[in-house]
Parts: sequence; structure tokens; C-alpha cells
Amino acid sequence: MQHTRPYNPSVSVDCVVFGFDGKALNVLLIERNIKENTGNYNDKKLPGSIIYTDETLDNAASRVLTELTGLKNIPLSQFRSFGDPNRSSNPRDVLWLERTTHTKITRIVTVAYVALIKINRKIILESEDRTANWYDVKEIEQMTLAFDHRQIIAKGLEHIMHWLKLEPHLMFKLLPRKFTLSQFRLLYDAVNQTQSDVRNFQKKVLQWKNLAPLDEFKTGMPHRAARLYKYHTNPKSAQKDT
Amino acid sequence: MQHTRPYNPSVSVDCVVFGFDGKALNVLLIERNIKENTGNYNDKKLPGSIIYTDETLDNAASRVLTELTGLKNIPLSQFRSFGDPNRSSNPRDVLWLERTTHTKITRIVTVAYVALIKINRKIILESEDRTANWYDVKEIEQMTLAFDHRQIIAKGLEHIMHWLKLEPHLMFKLLPRKFTLSQFRLLYDAVNQTQSDVRNFQKKVLQWKNLAPLDEFKTGMPHRAARLYKYHTNPKSAQKDT
Repeated sequence: MQHTRPYNPSVSVDCVVFGFDGKALNVLLIERNIKENTGNYNDKKLPGSIIYTDETLDNAASRVLTELTGLKNIPLSQFRSFGDPNRSSNPRDVLWLERTTHTKITRIVTVAYVALIKINRKIILESEDRTANWYDVKEIEQMTLAFDHRQIIAKGLEHIMHWLKLEPHLMFKLLPRKFTLSQFRLLYDAVNQTQSDVRNFQKKVLQWKNLAPLDEFKTGMPHRAARLYKYHTNPKSAQKDT
Repeated sequence: MQHTRPYNPSVSVDCVVFGFDGKALNVLLIERNIKENTGNYNDKKLPGSIIYTDETLDNAASRVLTELTGLKNIPLSQFRSFGDPNRSSNPRDVLWLERTTHTKITRIVTVAYVALIKINRKIILESEDRTANWYDVKEIEQMTLAFDHRQIIAKGLEHIMHWLKLEPHLMFKLLPRKFTLSQFRLLYDAVNQTQSDVRNFQKKVLQWKNLAPLDEFKTGMPHRAARLYKYHTNPKSAQKDT
């Protein structure tokens, strides 16, 4: 039935879903395999598509993400629209879209959404064609990406960095409830794309009243057992834990 | 020549330009006069239009603002796109757009831009049809507005409130270089849509190290001369002025 629902060929949505896997910041991309007269071609793109004429932008973003990756109920936020007249000028991109949507494509303005989630065993990618995968954002530079998706990912990353600077407590949703300072440092460096010095980082964050050291240790570590910490929104409750 | 440049009938830009006139926060609106078989109709809309197929979103926003209001070089920031399928369902809005652009209109997604400026003698509205005017944002509620422009203005106002909370120094670009605390209070209340108590406001802001009291007074006031203040980015330079 779905192919009879008309598309709006001028407007698309794209989802920049960042996922933290405990070590690195990843972005969710779709692998494209395009067969052309000149040979086969392979590249990556963000989960996205042109919108149906009868759906809201927010609904389009959730629908497209689910259809292409299997992910459901991801808290997507609209962050910016991209409308350079040349962003859909690569004939390969246009051809691919026309083949997948059976719609005549000219210029497309895309409304981009961003999300930041924890990749754990509950996160399973399961789409019809199983081509969605996580990629370390550090690897993006070496990849061939469709449309202006490199720029959209870069702007999405800027957006979450700004976001976490304003509301740093959101970072702790990406860690286990009890975490070591090394785990926190890996997260901090991943979302800020930095490489902190271990000692300086510890010195800095231990002054932070919202972090409560616990009398519990993470064992099975290569060197010595590492103390676990908990994050408290209210600094006063954090002090009680010590 | 311009009428031969093709429009993209699915995507528009709208500009929410807020202006502070020393007393109230205003928003720039266009008066529409529509002649219909059923009689004449009059309402207000944001300066906006569908985009040309060959221009970027940013360029479209500046162009449309200049064409409709005469304002040039306004620092517009893209803040959100609005794409409810019903936002352009009012036949009056569609008819008006088709008449002004000579283009067949169906569903339109609009990319909204926001700006905040000081209204002074340098700001002159001069468009071809001279229907652009400033309106106190407090009066918006009583007005008939086109499309979903009431919602776009509300979201634009939220955006600048958030913006000034993060970067309060930007507020002082809307005041004279030397200002009284009353002038500052009027601005503060206008951008936050609050009504501060005079004494509490003074007590609060006088603790702020970036405000430097001057040995100068504003005369010609109804009661007594009011002390003038200057804003300094660096609190240390502010202290030297005292």
C-alpha cells in the first residue's frame, strides 16, 4: 500500500543519530550499493528520505529512521535545515533517490534531526535491508558520503557539543549508573572530540560536587581496581554518599 | 526580468525580526489586503515567501526581507523549520501566494529565521508597497495572522530569550552606549516578557560587576536626574569607571 502514498519531492528529513558505545562516539549510517552502467558504486549516507505529502516533519524523521534502521522511540530534535541548491546536484544521489522513491527529484531542502543515545544490548539495528551500521565519527573523514551529509554530521556534532555544555548532566545518561573516572573520561573525550590528560581530567572532575565517590570498585581491570562513582543532580545528595 | 526566475513552490523562508524601540519589543509584520469575491480581507503576516530554485536558504531570507520591508544587512539566524501539512491549508493563504508569485502552491515547508535589532532613526522601512510595520509583541494575540505565523513568532521569541540567557551581553547592543537603569529594565522586561519590580531589579543588577555607574546623569526626567551606566565585557574595566 505504502508506494501509493504520494511523496513531496522537494523536502526531505535526515537523522544524525550519535551513539556512545563506552569507548567512542559513533554515527549511524546507511550503506548504499548503487549499480550503474559504469560499474558498481558504494558509499554511505545518513538515514533520511523525502517526506510524504501528508506527514509532519517530526513524524517523517521518526518513520524514516525506523524504516531504514529499525530504531524506534529515539528522541530526535530538529536542529537545522540544509538547502544549498547544489546539495542534490550529484547525479548519483538523484538517481538513487528516484529509484528508491519512484518520484522525480529536482532540488531538495532537508530538515536535519539529531539524537544522542547509549549503544547497549537493547539497541538492535534491524531494517529491511540490514545496511545500517554504527561508524566511529573519527572515520567519517576517510569515507565517501552522499549529498552534503559530511557537513550535516559536522553541524550535528557541533549541536550536541553545545547542548552538553549547557546541560552537562545529560552526559551521564550515556554511562552505566555506577561508572569509573576512566569511563567518564572516554565519554567526555568522545563527545568533545578531545584527548584529555588522565591526571588533569581526574583533578578537574573530582572538584565537581555532583560526582559522588562510592565505596565500591570495578574489579577485573588490568592494573588495579578502580573506584566507582555516581552522578547526582543535586550536589548535596552526592556528598552524603561519601 | 525577475518574474522569469522560477520559484520552488514547496519551500519558503519567513523572517521573525524583533526590534526594541526603547520601550517595547516589536515584531515586523506585513499587512495583507486581499480582495475576494466575498469581500475584502485584511490580516498580518511575517515577511516571507517561497524560495527561488537557484538560491540558498540564507540568501532567500535576506532577499525576501529586503524586498518586503526595505531592511538590509540584518543578521538573520535560521532557527527552525515548520512543516505541518495543514499549515498552508487556509485557502486564503494559498490564493494570496499564488497571486503574488504566479506559481501553483500545494504544501509548503517554511524555514524560519530570527533577528533582534535596535529600532532607531537609522532603521527605515521602505518597501515597494509600504505595508511593513512594527507591532508590539503584546498585541499579537489580538491579531489575525496568516498561516502558522503566530506559532512561528512564539518559537522565535523563545529562541531569543534562550539566546540572551546564554549571552546576556548581546542585550546591551539594543541600548544607547550610556543608559539608565530604567532603560535597562524596560529592555530586560521586553525581551523576557516580564514586569520587574523597580527596586528588586535595581538591587539585582547593581550586583553585576559588568555594569559601571558613571558620574553622569540623564537630565530632563520628570522626577529627578537618573544616573547613567555603561556595560563592560570585562568586569575589571567596569570597576575602573566608578
